[in-house]
Amino acid sequence: MSPLHTGTDFTREELQLAARNHGLPLEALRYPITPVGLHYILVHYDIPRIDPAAWRLEVRGLVEKPLDLGLDALRALPGVTLPVTFECAGNGRARLAPRPLSQPWLSEAVGTAEWTGVSLRTVLEQAGCLAGAVEVVFTGCDRGIENGTEQAFERSLSITDAMTGGAILAHGMNGGPLPPQHGFPLRLVVPGWYGMTNVKWLRRITVTAEPFGGYQQVWAYRIRQEENDPGEPLTLMAPRSLLAPPGIPDFFTRLRMCPRGSQRVEGRAWSGRAPIERVDFSDDGGSSWRPAELERPLGLHAWRGWWIDWEPRRSGAHVLASRARDAAGNEQPLSPPWNLGGYANNAVERVEVTVA
Amino acid sequence: MSPLHTGTDFTREELQLAARNHGLPLEALRYPITPVGLHYILVHYDIPRIDPAAWRLEVRGLVEKPLDLGLDALRALPGVTLPVTFECAGNGRARLAPRPLSQPWLSEAVGTAEWTGVSLRTVLEQAGCLAGAVEVVFTGCDRGIENGTEQAFERSLSITDAMTGGAILAHGMNGGPLPPQHGFPLRLVVPGWYGMTNVKWLRRITVTAEPFGGYQQVWAYRIRQEENDPGEPLTLMAPRSLLAPPGIPDFFTRLRMCPRGSQRVEGRAWSGRAPIERVDFSDDGGSSWRPAELERPLGLHAWRGWWIDWEPRRSGAHVLASRARDAAGNEQPLSPPWNLGGYANNAVERVEVTVA
Repeated sequence: MSPLHTGTDFTREELQLAARNHGLPLEALRYPITPVGLHYILVHYDIPRIDPAAWRLEVRGLVEKPLDLGLDALRALPGVTLPVTFECAGNGRARLAPRPLSQPWLSEAVGTAEWTGVSLRTVLEQAGCLAGAVEVVFTGCDRGIENGTEQAFERSLSITDAMTGGAILAHGMNGGPLPPQHGFPLRLVVPGWYGMTNVKWLRRITVTAEPFGGYQQVWAYRIRQEENDPGEPLTLMAPRSLLAPPGIPDFFTRLRMCPRGSQRVEGRAWSGRAPIERVDFSDDGGSSWRPAELERPLGLHAWRGWWIDWEPRRSGAHVLASRARDAAGNEQPLSPPWNLGGYANNAVERVEVTVA
Repeated sequence: MSPLHTGTDFTREELQLAARNHGLPLEALRYPITPVGLHYILVHYDIPRIDPAAWRLEVRGLVEKPLDLGLDALRALPGVTLPVTFECAGNGRARLAPRPLSQPWLSEAVGTAEWTGVSLRTVLEQAGCLAGAVEVVFTGCDRGIENGTEQAFERSLSITDAMTGGAILAHGMNGGPLPPQHGFPLRLVVPGWYGMTNVKWLRRITVTAEPFGGYQQVWAYRIRQEENDPGEPLTLMAPRSLLAPPGIPDFFTRLRMCPRGSQRVEGRAWSGRAPIERVDFSDDGGSSWRPAELERPLGLHAWRGWWIDWEPRRSGAHVLASRARDAAGNEQPLSPPWNLGGYANNAVERVEVTVA
């Protein structure tokens, strides 16, 4: 697990990760579908070099018919295109104290793309899962070291989630091929789940008779309070909302200056657990709330736009916040839930602005 | 100017900038033309919201005929496509001690795109510069606060540089329209200059009789050793080279593990001052050097690929480095040049790897 940092400063290792990976600049919340280059990216190791002509997806393990599928064969299967919101399970980690040392996300590790591909179920049915199959393991081409051990990035789904969760094997994003950093030539997309589920640069799918014991499944990406707690696996995204900060920023501090007078504040809200049902807005840091308007849903698994016309009652500092609730009654907490990995911090975000 | 930080840690303000902006993951040095989303991005304020149908480029000031050009009118002019390497003038800032507080780039603020647009000269000739014209000011749609003052991002070029420097008004990148974060609908591209020159989200070009006195021209982006030194303006990029770190990384530390045996190490080198003439490689941190092979140039204003087949002589830690020299005799220094803004740190980069 990640060691903890008690200071408010950030280490060089954290900065190195922040310089490589990147978040959604919050003003880009204005786009229902996030343009390429603005969607968040977390690459555990390096973006692998893959020759698409030589690349094959292997389907192996407890199947009637092992498959080796090239990109053309995958593109020839019936296609599906779906807007899906991804959020990194570590989003909000950098707001925790003490802070688990890992990728230091503040609040911007999110994005929504239109993914095009083949239903995972179609491919698994083509291979034919045999009796005794319990999980499906997804192996990426990316290799690195974690916890002292060389490994590929690998995650699994239960056979039920794999067959009925609406997962797709995506070869396209926003109408083009997958960009290298999003998993070219093929990645998994599992609607509603935290980002680590969506294995990039897929090279093998293995149907297994045992639960998968890989590092990213049984050590990382679990909610635990202490080292020897086995913890609970991270699965569906908790509800969260963000707002595009109004006004204009100071370059270095990013503090905002807003005009007096009515102005529209916009944002987006999502939950992997149920549709977004309500978003509330506050201009006093969460002491009082009023409901925002909701846009028409983009899709079952995409964030939902919201807006409110805000008229500051006075000049000076205001703290804006939004709070989402989903149809299953899950609501963003007012203060961060803490755990050893710094995962699933969906606390209400507070944005300081100064009204002229 | 930026305040200085004497610690090795990074502040929350620096992290906020690192989370919004992003660098080129070094393994992406493998692409001669950087794919969208991997090219570095520095946005001073916010990415502005622009309606391309309503947008016009205004050409004003000391001209015979003021112009208002829409995107279709610009696209109808004779086009030019050019690979150009951009590097942020602040690249390497985070390696300085004490460290100027601003966007904390380590070494990855670089990228090369194929820019498509119209020659700036063509547009200026259409407007007709009048006698007495000394500079051309480029104003972006992006607004924010720097040095306590609200402003648009603005930079100027001398009339000579504007007419004869090969500058283009680009509406396309890598074969598509400009992405929002790269200046949609139109940006300036000035081959060879540091990144801040290439004003994004252009809305006005003003031909002036006086040198421009804006913040980004006379305060920021100047090499100075003390506050009241007027300093020297940053113009053409100093020579620099980077290498794609071989082997595989540890997730958190990014330290590399390499195999024993011969392996190809690749990188790229660039200079805005003259063509790259030589790149040397070291595996002992710069004590000894041997020449790398150079790839065929991509273009006059694009980085040049280099490679070397490296066979580690022993197991254990090695420090890899590369050093570029251009045809004008400019060479990367072995230790960082320091200045108040943390600009133009083109010191030789050192990459630690462990050989198995």
